[in-house]
Amino acid sequence: MKKTLNIGIIGAGRIGKVHAESICTRIPAAVVKTMADPFMNDETEKWAKSMGVVSVTKDYREILADREIDAVLICTPTDTHASITREAAKAGKHIFCEKPIDLNVDSIKETLKVVEEAGVKFQIGFNRRFDHNFRAIRQAVVDGKVGEPQMIKIISRDPSPPPAEYVKSSGGIFVDMTIHDFDMLRFLSGSEVEEIYAQGAVLVDPAIGEAGDIDTALITVKFASGALGSIDNSRKAAYGYDQRAEVFGSKGSAASANDSPSTVILSTEEGITTEKPFHFFLERYMDSFAREVKEFVEAVQNDTETPLGGLDALRPVQIALAAGESLKTGKPVKIKY
Amino acid sequence: MKKTLNIGIIGAGRIGKVHAESICTRIPAAVVKTMADPFMNDETEKWAKSMGVVSVTKDYREILADREIDAVLICTPTDTHASITREAAKAGKHIFCEKPIDLNVDSIKETLKVVEEAGVKFQIGFNRRFDHNFRAIRQAVVDGKVGEPQMIKIISRDPSPPPAEYVKSSGGIFVDMTIHDFDMLRFLSGSEVEEIYAQGAVLVDPAIGEAGDIDTALITVKFASGALGSIDNSRKAAYGYDQRAEVFGSKGSAASANDSPSTVILSTEEGITTEKPFHFFLERYMDSFAREVKEFVEAVQNDTETPLGGLDALRPVQIALAAGESLKTGKPVKIKY
Amino acid sequence: MKKTLNIGIIGAGRIGKVHAESICTRIPAAVVKTMADPFMNDETEKWAKSMGVVSVTKDYREILADREIDAVLICTPTDTHASITREAAKAGKHIFCEKPIDLNVDSIKETLKVVEEAGVKFQIGFNRRFDHNFRAIRQAVVDGKVGEPQMIKIISRDPSPPPAEYVKSSGGIFVDMTIHDFDMLRFLSGSEVEEIYAQGAVLVDPAIGEAGDIDTALITVKFASGALGSIDNSRKAAYGYDQRAEVFGSKGSAASANDSPSTVILSTEEGITTEKPFHFFLERYMDSFAREVKEFVEAVQNDTETPLGGLDALRPVQIALAAGESLKTGKPVKIKY
Amino acid sequence: MKKTLNIGIIGAGRIGKVHAESICTRIPAAVVKTMADPFMNDETEKWAKSMGVVSVTKDYREILADREIDAVLICTPTDTHASITREAAKAGKHIFCEKPIDLNVDSIKETLKVVEEAGVKFQIGFNRRFDHNFRAIRQAVVDGKVGEPQMIKIISRDPSPPPAEYVKSSGGIFVDMTIHDFDMLRFLSGSEVEEIYAQGAVLVDPAIGEAGDIDTALITVKFASGALGSIDNSRKAAYGYDQRAEVFGSKGSAASANDSPSTVILSTEEGITTEKPFHFFLERYMDSFAREVKEFVEAVQNDTETPLGGLDALRPVQIALAAGESLKTGKPVKIKY
Repeated sequence: MKKTLNIGIIGAGRIGKVHAESICTRIPAAVVKTMADPFMNDETEKWAKSMGVVSVTKDYREILADREIDAVLICTPTDTHASITREAAKAGKHIFCEKPIDLNVDSIKETLKVVEEAGVKFQIGFNRRFDHNFRAIRQAVVDGKVGEPQMIKIISRDPSPPPAEYVKSSGGIFVDMTIHDFDMLRFLSGSEVEEIYAQGAVLVDPAIGEAGDIDTALITVKFASGALGSIDNSRKAAYGYDQRAEVFGSKGSAASANDSPSTVILSTEEGITTEKPFHFFLERYMDSFAREVKEFVEAVQNDTETPLGGLDALRPVQIALAAGESLKTGKPVKIKY
Repeated sequence: MKKTLNIGIIGAGRIGKVHAESICTRIPAAVVKTMADPFMNDETEKWAKSMGVVSVTKDYREILADREIDAVLICTPTDTHASITREAAKAGKHIFCEKPIDLNVDSIKETLKVVEEAGVKFQIGFNRRFDHNFRAIRQAVVDGKVGEPQMIKIISRDPSPPPAEYVKSSGGIFVDMTIHDFDMLRFLSGSEVEEIYAQGAVLVDPAIGEAGDIDTALITVKFASGALGSIDNSRKAAYGYDQRAEVFGSKGSAASANDSPSTVILSTEEGITTEKPFHFFLERYMDSFAREVKEFVEAVQNDTETPLGGLDALRPVQIALAAGESLKTGKPVKIKY
Repeated sequence: MKKTLNIGIIGAGRIGKVHAESICTRIPAAVVKTMADPFMNDETEKWAKSMGVVSVTKDYREILADREIDAVLICTPTDTHASITREAAKAGKHIFCEKPIDLNVDSIKETLKVVEEAGVKFQIGFNRRFDHNFRAIRQAVVDGKVGEPQMIKIISRDPSPPPAEYVKSSGGIFVDMTIHDFDMLRFLSGSEVEEIYAQGAVLVDPAIGEAGDIDTALITVKFASGALGSIDNSRKAAYGYDQRAEVFGSKGSAASANDSPSTVILSTEEGITTEKPFHFFLERYMDSFAREVKEFVEAVQNDTETPLGGLDALRPVQIALAAGESLKTGKPVKIKY
Repeated sequence: MKKTLNIGIIGAGRIGKVHAESICTRIPAAVVKTMADPFMNDETEKWAKSMGVVSVTKDYREILADREIDAVLICTPTDTHASITREAAKAGKHIFCEKPIDLNVDSIKETLKVVEEAGVKFQIGFNRRFDHNFRAIRQAVVDGKVGEPQMIKIISRDPSPPPAEYVKSSGGIFVDMTIHDFDMLRFLSGSEVEEIYAQGAVLVDPAIGEAGDIDTALITVKFASGALGSIDNSRKAAYGYDQRAEVFGSKGSAASANDSPSTVILSTEEGITTEKPFHFFLERYMDSFAREVKEFVEAVQNDTETPLGGLDALRPVQIALAAGESLKTGKPVKIKY
């Protein structure tokens, strides 16, 4: 039996808590030894203890200094991901970092270099790759059931837009929301995006437009393999969180539908009605959050490659930035890697 | 905040382990203090400890004698349910008992009397009531969406038949398998079964017939409310575990479909294919097992009624016995409660 | 090329007109030479001529006497089916007769004997056998895709109850409505019903009960093959005309869903909604009405067996009468053929 | 009652025969007086007569000269549409013309001018607007059920590619195949396409690439309304003819699924399988072909506007040509109307 992995979680916000709970309740092979957050307070400490977290601190450097801790989960605000990743690597900790490492490509490359030199494991947090539906599509592709992929299509619509205030500091829809879909294009196609054209509009909330962003987008890409791809984004689907994908190929198509709270069909004079998709991303993707950390833990314990490495951290940001350029110039953009 | 509930689990077979895992990983409000099984061995002990079970024993009476333990889960073979329930009640423990208490109606009644006199909480383990799909149907009925229920229909087909050896000691399909469906009829209709007619056949495995049982059944019932009901049972559905229900009423119908591992639709030259239902009952009903225990814990902590009490333990057995009589006589049977 | 078939239609009510239109617009191989109805009027004549019907009359005996007419469609009220069938047979006409020939078994047998002696083709009008969905189920059975049939299940619910006035003279739900489902049981199973148990209730309209009938029924049957079967009937499904079937067998299940006006899925804050099934039986089954007559025409032209012969006219009435007896006695009834 | 409309059909190829059959069997208000085709032969004549076509000829000018003929259907090869339309207009015939009038915009404009001056009715043959599914989507939009349209999405995939030989003379995928989708974008959005970006690839058949065309396309458009749109085309979907659309708006989404031969669901050890979509476009769209001609006949008889007039003939060609330019230049193209 493998040695239990001691984990430090840096950042006790929403996603930090999600990971803490996953590890404490679903991953017997790991323990959360310490959880760090500059805003650590009694309530969070109490919650952490109740979950089984051993200790808490305000200073993440305590985690980095703790020799018993094997690995860290970096769940802090995006603008600290790169520097903490570098520190953690230098401290010899294996690293699971929430996406993205940075919005600056050079910073990402520099950070990945530090990680590589330190010889620690690194995994980037694109949780959707661990979702049962997207995995099943990918498996169908790998199994040859759809033949050679020709079109990869993603529908990714949020249930409601973020506040315009948030939008201002988010870096824009492509790095904030679509970045998951860029990762998904790479995952489902097994190929790299070579060229991208992004069409956008402000149709949901004028305040988003005033904040300099868009809320509706149709994106077309060309893959190195020759296949084509598209992403359809909206910040607001009235019926809930719409998360679907399709790979269409020479032998057919594998396409996923949404998940919903029950399978019940209500038939009345008004029509035949089924439940809406899960509304909240944590409901929809809870299992995938647990699985990504589980596979990270296994990769560390078995000394194997993590399922999502450095390139997987870098490429989606490069694609997102090219999408932004395309939107600004109104022209397709070839991506230089 | 409520005091953490100390639970003893009596029986460390498959279902005992399921409940131990649920409590340890999903129910922070409770702790498994002791797990008892006459066949307790190193492996089970190791597993139990890894889950967070505090101690193990071969003698369930240690649990009954432990003053710190508030409640017990009885997960032993059926023929011991009644006697252990009575002992536990006399020891002042709140009781969650796997179904059925007994196959003998008088024994059940006697046992329930002891429980009542002891003034402890009692819950019977019909987990399907806690399933998201069946709950959603029931909710639609309660919300008046289907109007007055007129027909309650259940499809309940196993993925593969049990060994004929098991069949011999099982008490027959009606008490072993259909009993869940009898409970579901009561749950979905909100009414009692007054009359039952059972038609059966041996179509899956001749050895089941030689063991004196049937493997295929169509059952019709009449409810006190005037509604009609039916159950369709098979010991073997080639495509997996088929678990569906419908309430049809004056305003329409609420019907559930099966759950499956993913929503992926594969379209090829061969046809349009989706995944089969979950095959194994623990995959299909894992959440419902966790919820039933969670609600039991809450009922004890809040001193409220358990969601499934004594009558819910008694009635399905009475219905199952009447079904057996109908099958034997070839005639409808009125049930005397 | 075959000689064009000259057809006489006896009865110009709703179903007579449906058949006239089918022949005139969809069956180039046949012509409606004459349409007869004692209530023939200017409006009907005008309609008939516009469709391409050559001539009309008030006296069906003109049709029987017309040597140019090869075949007749008997679309008159049920109580005249038997006598007109006999007359037509004696006149040497091939016969397509709406169901049922009669509600009296002896009369049916006597009529079929006359038909046989006359050596003319005979087809009974159970149109649902020609429906694309039920045919596809049957084909799956014939192709061995579901293995040995074990359960045959039919859901047959009308969109709205007939007037109680009609119910009085209808012969009751089993001969009026369920008779189609009895035919469907035979068609889908490829076996004969040996025993039947009918449970019924008045849940839709008390006036139907006062008229001596029921409006809700659950019927269980046992087939000669050993398979079991069930029918679920309601006179009123709030969401429309519900017409489904399933054959469950050793290798799996073939089940049909309803047809609806479009495949559009509307997703809004209220839910995910699809269209209700077709409401009106003529919309739902229009194609099957055309196909049954087309196959009758072909059988006559090619001198082959009609797809539904004498036994198919007799058996469903025998089953319906047994169902009535079961309902009355409250016991299963073995059918004597 | 309206006077029966006398129609001449010019062109007796596949689509000419489809319209002849529709009129003869489903449109009592019209008669096909003459069918003209330079390759008219005995077989076609026999077929035409059997359907009820009054006369045939090799010379369409006989139709134009026939004073009894009110309207013509132009079903000849594309390169003759414009000249015959002009001749027919000058002869005072109402005109239904298969799409497109021409691939040259000036020629279309000139032709429409002639039609206008002649004061005859004109309808262009975009049959898909009459399809039950697309109509239901449009109706949902008109009824305000999806709110303000934000994205209009079309999936249009053929079951198998045309011969490369055909491709050479087809004018390319955008005018040959996608033109229907361009019309559909206009129909579903109720707005005009302002800008288009077309991405294409040769993934199905290299011979198509050698013939100078593509077989796979992803097209993005911007509407005058501000909405975005996309079309996904493939010349070969292994599972059949894939024809779907969605309008996504501020209140939700209306999306259509494919039609298939039956609703039967086959559940076996291999999976849960439904039928593939209709394979052949005439099966899929037969009803829409009949309805477009029916509405044309009604527009003429009632002297109302035809459902698809001159602009509907012109715009899709302009969009298709812009798509071709975008593909060639690799840039989005603003459309000048």
